[in-house]
Amino acid sequence: MCIAVLDSGGILKAFARMDDAWLGSVDVAIKKAKTACFFGMTSGQIGELSQPGGPLYGIEHSNDGLISFPGGIPVVDEDGVLIGAVGVSGSTVENDHQVAKAAVESIGVTDLPEHPWRT
Amino acid sequence: MCIAVLDSGGILKAFARMDDAWLGSVDVAIKKAKTACFFGMTSGQIGELSQPGGPLYGIEHSNDGLISFPGGIPVVDEDGVLIGAVGVSGSTVENDHQVAKAAVESIGVTDLPEHPWRT
Amino acid sequence: MCIAVLDSGGILKAFARMDDAWLGSVDVAIKKAKTACFFGMTSGQIGELSQPGGPLYGIEHSNDGLISFPGGIPVVDEDGVLIGAVGVSGSTVENDHQVAKAAVESIGVTDLPEHPWRT
Amino acid sequence: MCIAVLDSGGILKAFARMDDAWLGSVDVAIKKAKTACFFGMTSGQIGELSQPGGPLYGIEHSNDGLISFPGGIPVVDEDGVLIGAVGVSGSTVENDHQVAKAAVESIGVTDLPEHPWRT
Repeated sequence: MCIAVLDSGGILKAFARMDDAWLGSVDVAIKKAKTACFFGMTSGQIGELSQPGGPLYGIEHSNDGLISFPGGIPVVDEDGVLIGAVGVSGSTVENDHQVAKAAVESIGVTDLPEHPWRT
Repeated sequence: MCIAVLDSGGILKAFARMDDAWLGSVDVAIKKAKTACFFGMTSGQIGELSQPGGPLYGIEHSNDGLISFPGGIPVVDEDGVLIGAVGVSGSTVENDHQVAKAAVESIGVTDLPEHPWRT
Repeated sequence: MCIAVLDSGGILKAFARMDDAWLGSVDVAIKKAKTACFFGMTSGQIGELSQPGGPLYGIEHSNDGLISFPGGIPVVDEDGVLIGAVGVSGSTVENDHQVAKAAVESIGVTDLPEHPWRT
Repeated sequence: MCIAVLDSGGILKAFARMDDAWLGSVDVAIKKAKTACFFGMTSGQIGELSQPGGPLYGIEHSNDGLISFPGGIPVVDEDGVLIGAVGVSGSTVENDHQVAKAAVESIGVTDLPEHPWRT
């Protein structure tokens, strides 16, 4: 499993790779976090919107590549400000999401207010 | 919301990002405009052609990445010449398209003539 | 001449290109600002450190490309916090630097405190 | 020898590779032409300015890579408008430059007026 922590500008703040984790998960974890940070929602929510026929179909081609399955979650402070994101990759996507959720909840909250929210 | 204006060569001419817009919308707005400029149609029209099973499925992988949902519109002058494109990202794709349309109509027209059209 | 304004995360906030400016200056202006933002000093200062034999020789290969000649300046607020950067390209490097300096001084200050400084 | 012809937006218009030319020259020829187009001067002139200690040291890192040795020449029409560029690679740089010069002179002129010039 790989865990990436990004700041509010989408830049890497911390990263850890467990022994024997897939090498390909390094980039996937970072891109999941970037996806969550860049659009203020979980990577899985982007994935729901980017299915064939969906309103954001193909958005993964932007920003040097997004990852749109679960495992990336924004980190929001108590004032509703997006302060970063966590991305996890290397297990099932359900596990990845749970690990990211646990990480985020130890720092802040995971949901942006409906409106307004701030970066 | 982010608004990008490109010239007829697909190169950035002007850009503005509203406060608290998604960071990921910077690149999406630019790529929507590029998509419209490079193929002489709206980014949404490319999206209709690039669905699974469609004739242009996967075209987003070309030209360092395209964005194929609405919000990118070509700018055409009164002689039918493609002179640039506008791309908008950051709200619903319907809103993005309307804002791009308003911008383009203030400069020129949005539809290329059937044949011939010129760049 | 092209003028790019980035936020503290190095992401584009605003951009303008004058008519007949070199097309190549679009990217140079953005990368000068990115260089200033990413390292908290002017792009020219990075250039002094990255000459052959210098301590940062070759740093331009990092971060998807830096530009290390004058024209990129960090924007610092009165508390010594780096809040963004301005990059200018399209004239002599001396002119580029002067224009960037004028832009930055209208927003904040251009020098980070020796220690500590914060992003 | 490889010969690339770009339009005024820096986009490929024509290309030919002689049998047995170096494969690496494909990209070099295109980038020489892009360099000439993007900055309105020969690729060799950029090279003089981008030496260590020079005012544009390191500019090759911009625009997804420039090539700054001779062989790229802008194409200018009789009104002083930059209409494209030719890039040649695969022989000595002197030969590359001569071939590009012959190509450009068959289309237009190679020198931009001092001021003003237009794209």
